[in-house]
Amino acid sequence: MVKYTLFGESHGEAIGVVLENLPPGIKIDMDFINKEMGRRKANDGGLTTSRIEPDKVEIISGVFREHTTGAPLCGIIRNQNVISRDYKKIKDIARPSHADYTGYVKYQGYNDYRGGGHFSGRVTAALVFAGALARLILKEKGIYIGSHILQILDIRDTKFDKTNIDQSLIDDLANKQFAVINKAVSKRMQDAILSAKYNQTSIGGIIECAVINMDCGIGSPGLDSIESTISKHIFGIGAVKGIEFGAGFDFCNMYGHEANDEMYIKDGKVMTYSNNNGGILGGISNGMPITFNVAIKPTPSISRKQRTVDFNKMDNCEIEISGRHDPCILSRAVVVIECATALALCEIL
Amino acid sequence: MVKYTLFGESHGEAIGVVLENLPPGIKIDMDFINKEMGRRKANDGGLTTSRIEPDKVEIISGVFREHTTGAPLCGIIRNQNVISRDYKKIKDIARPSHADYTGYVKYQGYNDYRGGGHFSGRVTAALVFAGALARLILKEKGIYIGSHILQILDIRDTKFDKTNIDQSLIDDLANKQFAVINKAVSKRMQDAILSAKYNQTSIGGIIECAVINMDCGIGSPGLDSIESTISKHIFGIGAVKGIEFGAGFDFCNMYGHEANDEMYIKDGKVMTYSNNNGGILGGISNGMPITFNVAIKPTPSISRKQRTVDFNKMDNCEIEISGRHDPCILSRAVVVIECATALALCEIL
Amino acid sequence: MVKYTLFGESHGEAIGVVLENLPPGIKIDMDFINKEMGRRKANDGGLTTSRIEPDKVEIISGVFREHTTGAPLCGIIRNQNVISRDYKKIKDIARPSHADYTGYVKYQGYNDYRGGGHFSGRVTAALVFAGALARLILKEKGIYIGSHILQILDIRDTKFDKTNIDQSLIDDLANKQFAVINKAVSKRMQDAILSAKYNQTSIGGIIECAVINMDCGIGSPGLDSIESTISKHIFGIGAVKGIEFGAGFDFCNMYGHEANDEMYIKDGKVMTYSNNNGGILGGISNGMPITFNVAIKPTPSISRKQRTVDFNKMDNCEIEISGRHDPCILSRAVVVIECATALALCEIL
Amino acid sequence: MVKYTLFGESHGEAIGVVLENLPPGIKIDMDFINKEMGRRKANDGGLTTSRIEPDKVEIISGVFREHTTGAPLCGIIRNQNVISRDYKKIKDIARPSHADYTGYVKYQGYNDYRGGGHFSGRVTAALVFAGALARLILKEKGIYIGSHILQILDIRDTKFDKTNIDQSLIDDLANKQFAVINKAVSKRMQDAILSAKYNQTSIGGIIECAVINMDCGIGSPGLDSIESTISKHIFGIGAVKGIEFGAGFDFCNMYGHEANDEMYIKDGKVMTYSNNNGGILGGISNGMPITFNVAIKPTPSISRKQRTVDFNKMDNCEIEISGRHDPCILSRAVVVIECATALALCEIL
Repeated sequence: MVKYTLFGESHGEAIGVVLENLPPGIKIDMDFINKEMGRRKANDGGLTTSRIEPDKVEIISGVFREHTTGAPLCGIIRNQNVISRDYKKIKDIARPSHADYTGYVKYQGYNDYRGGGHFSGRVTAALVFAGALARLILKEKGIYIGSHILQILDIRDTKFDKTNIDQSLIDDLANKQFAVINKAVSKRMQDAILSAKYNQTSIGGIIECAVINMDCGIGSPGLDSIESTISKHIFGIGAVKGIEFGAGFDFCNMYGHEANDEMYIKDGKVMTYSNNNGGILGGISNGMPITFNVAIKPTPSISRKQRTVDFNKMDNCEIEISGRHDPCILSRAVVVIECATALALCEIL
Repeated sequence: MVKYTLFGESHGEAIGVVLENLPPGIKIDMDFINKEMGRRKANDGGLTTSRIEPDKVEIISGVFREHTTGAPLCGIIRNQNVISRDYKKIKDIARPSHADYTGYVKYQGYNDYRGGGHFSGRVTAALVFAGALARLILKEKGIYIGSHILQILDIRDTKFDKTNIDQSLIDDLANKQFAVINKAVSKRMQDAILSAKYNQTSIGGIIECAVINMDCGIGSPGLDSIESTISKHIFGIGAVKGIEFGAGFDFCNMYGHEANDEMYIKDGKVMTYSNNNGGILGGISNGMPITFNVAIKPTPSISRKQRTVDFNKMDNCEIEISGRHDPCILSRAVVVIECATALALCEIL
Repeated sequence: MVKYTLFGESHGEAIGVVLENLPPGIKIDMDFINKEMGRRKANDGGLTTSRIEPDKVEIISGVFREHTTGAPLCGIIRNQNVISRDYKKIKDIARPSHADYTGYVKYQGYNDYRGGGHFSGRVTAALVFAGALARLILKEKGIYIGSHILQILDIRDTKFDKTNIDQSLIDDLANKQFAVINKAVSKRMQDAILSAKYNQTSIGGIIECAVINMDCGIGSPGLDSIESTISKHIFGIGAVKGIEFGAGFDFCNMYGHEANDEMYIKDGKVMTYSNNNGGILGGISNGMPITFNVAIKPTPSISRKQRTVDFNKMDNCEIEISGRHDPCILSRAVVVIECATALALCEIL
Repeated sequence: MVKYTLFGESHGEAIGVVLENLPPGIKIDMDFINKEMGRRKANDGGLTTSRIEPDKVEIISGVFREHTTGAPLCGIIRNQNVISRDYKKIKDIARPSHADYTGYVKYQGYNDYRGGGHFSGRVTAALVFAGALARLILKEKGIYIGSHILQILDIRDTKFDKTNIDQSLIDDLANKQFAVINKAVSKRMQDAILSAKYNQTSIGGIIECAVINMDCGIGSPGLDSIESTISKHIFGIGAVKGIEFGAGFDFCNMYGHEANDEMYIKDGKVMTYSNNNGGILGGISNGMPITFNVAIKPTPSISRKQRTVDFNKMDNCEIEISGRHDPCILSRAVVVIECATALALCEIL
């Protein structure tokens, strides 16, 4: 049961992660890890933030002769591209839909407010590193995780065929800077993002994720169900506000005889004709692809003037957020969702 | 940090629950507990199952002189209305969208297959008992949880006003056998359910749930976020396939300047004009109502003939499920959702 | 990773336990379970308490067709031989070296004070039931646990040969009502107990416990070391006040060259000439018998007059404890120690 | 509930620790932390190892403006004084009473064998850093922890007066390089250590530890008892092989009427005349000092020739361990024991 602890703040020394209970003997494939780290980086021509970090991971324990030892593995990533500014002036002005105020209250004013501190999306760099390790574990069992941007505004990509997802599709998506299946849709989505940027606002969207080649019989009923475990990890990512497995909220529009996944035998294996349950029954994998959608809210940092409060003076005020902000984080979020999923699965495998 | 363990099988001796770390001194309000148990029961004239159980809870530890002692509390509910039949004949025929096959694989054929065993919705009776205790704890802090059926097919109830939910509305809903705000909608939903029953099928739907009077500052970023914790518990309920907080999947259709919850001071308290974040920022409560929707799939047990497999013979076959089944479990599920939420909150308060 | 939760009070309805994560398919050997329960019972002619309970376990979940299902298993044992008396009069008078006062403070006066409530040794009946199940799991791996009373006052039994403990010795001890290796020592110990009883006092002692046939490589360094795990479980038993592995406190009197367990190969297996480390190095089993001693304090309930306090009035007073009390619990404690050890091992296997 | 994860290897990049759930607002008193780190260092004139490390802690997260933020705190200590040598030659030769062989088996040959890797006592430097932070938390509640070397061979220091331990005594001991109460005893112990060193062997001993000013009512019965929690943490330290609370194994020689701690009221507070229970009843603190002894085995690294095995070739062989080794680690272990205790208490406070 792999566990991980993320640490670090946006403008602190470094961010990082400690992983416990890793199996020994996992080959540290730095090419793969760096590729995963690269997928999260901002490098797609104006669509995302202009804070560029090298994000070089320094592994300081748990690895010997390029393999995991089984002892706790700590990896840290130094923060470098930190712009100093006078945060004190704005530290009590809550950015709407950010954790500035809730963090202040929970931590009694001791939280590191610079750049969102530990709440910053920057921490997901360490999550991707951890998840890349988890994926190396899953790979040894033949398990792969892929995802794409399913929807932005009313622009909708081709859905996965929930009963049959090929590894080559997953590989293709992992190689795209902007993970969308349909090229025309991809173009329209990117235009929508640039338009939002131009209009000093932001957009969110939906990511569809799939896990293939999970054996039947993994998971449990109750609090350790696959859905419980994946959702616990996915909601650990800051901007996520919804998750649905299989048909999810669309079940609302189905009758039981349409919703049920009828079964058959193929090549000595139990299969289902449809996969509305997203590969999970009673909290346990049934051998079909595990599929789920994740809702991500628009980036809260927008440069338009907004009404807010000074929570120290307890006064109304206004805010105009300057700085480097993504108009849409979805292209960078796909690998984060995949990595959180990998870590979730390594908790229950 | 209250923990609970559900146990029991549909056709076993009893179901029950053990709760650990309950605060001492909680008055056991049996009227409230029984009322909650009653809300889950099937007693609404044909809309739900015909298995009627008295569901009398026997508390066998952890209570002394009508108050919790602080020691583990065990409550059990005897199974009574169990119809004996020859389950052996059908034990290897998987009911589509049930956990028959996944349970068989996970438990290597040792699972109690009668009536779904530990996977049965019957176990939620114990969950409601546990949740009722959790609600007594929350009540002492002034925290209330309410919910209603938001949607069945395309029939949609009035939504909660996410910025202002009154306790009286919550009380009203708790007193309804069929928890819908709008009377006309309620009638149409019930008709739809009876129609589904008549057509030997079933329907699912969406439940909207709200928690009021949570102080700001509860929860954490990361894996112990409020969203992570609530979703972990909610997905522990068998039929749940999706959860979204605040605007959830609708964030997809919003721009940042529409989605952001602008802030203001009212009576010395920080408030937000809208509540698209469902009362949670950075995994931490912000003092506004916590709101979320839960997607519930149609009851898988339908009497229509379905294609399935005999997983012992590994052969295709057909199944016609007889017996007592709810065409729609939503009216009974509202209290289950509320109780799981109460238990989730007692884990992080 | 098997987990268990004990519940119940000395004078409540019942005591019991819920076990989670049991492997499916363990045959419920009721003869073995009842034999273990019997070893804990008071039936040795005046040496122990006169409260005799049938201690019949009712398994109400998690077992189907005489095998574990893998779902949570709950077993309860009704309390029967409960003498009613007016506990209210004495409820605020702390019995020295009992948990009356600490329980009162921790639970803010809501604890069930009758007969010690949840602190009572009665709860160990449920622990033995749980441990008997754990031993059935261990048996399938060939692992056995045995123990004997090593010392009472200055009367000392033959020690285990730490490098070579035969299963037949373990079986012999399990069949003895008074588990002592050396017959003459056994007689002297029993005389000492009767003498203590006659003198209205009590005695404690030391139990030596051994686990045989554990493979090398089980356990971890740090907080999940075998020593950490066993000690956590053993100190969960009320009267235990010390534990030492291998040579334990005697290491104080040894030089390194005497203490070190030199190694050799025998039949293709790594062995040690001595076993001062009690089969554990770096928190991990080394394949030799795991051995440890447990210190048990004298039964605090004695009938002699003692100085104490009324913690309600906050006044000094005296107490004379009447009722049924063991002058020495060691003969009943051996199986409890073994069972707690079995549960500890099932947590890390 | 503070949690910590130690990471790092003796000859790796660094060792360190991540602490979770620290309360926000704890002032980082670097003088205190460095003083604690210093107590663990080897600087007492030949009595301990000659590997001298600066042990400078770099805090890379969780601290802002010199106070804890409440977010995870990571501290790392670079390894510097690492002597390169050809470890490959000796990697399969098990040092007796070390974890070389058990680590090899558990980690399937992937463990970092250089200098003991993660099993090395070097990791306790990070433990002391973590414990120093825990002590800063305890200090705010007035709780102090002190310890001394109670016994080496048959040389025995003055015991603590278990009913009355002054903070000034604790402070005195913390300021001693060789923490022994009685000066003459201290000298004799140091002579014994030098003599062991001269004789190419090593010695262990017993450390007595006490916690003062704990309120009554902390802890729980069962697996979260104070004894369970402290022992779990103390046995996480490599060389520890025994722990006893209060009278511990001496209970064996007492009758109940001698062992029981009679009670009285003093200044409106419940006190006990004796403290054989070491301040804990039913797993819960009773307000008296918490006292326990810890048995530490002789350093296994001795330069004398020893019989051992090559576990790769599965052959008998001999070993002569060269290098820098403590003939006795007790003077350095006192602060490690105190720090592990502080972390244990912060888990249950």
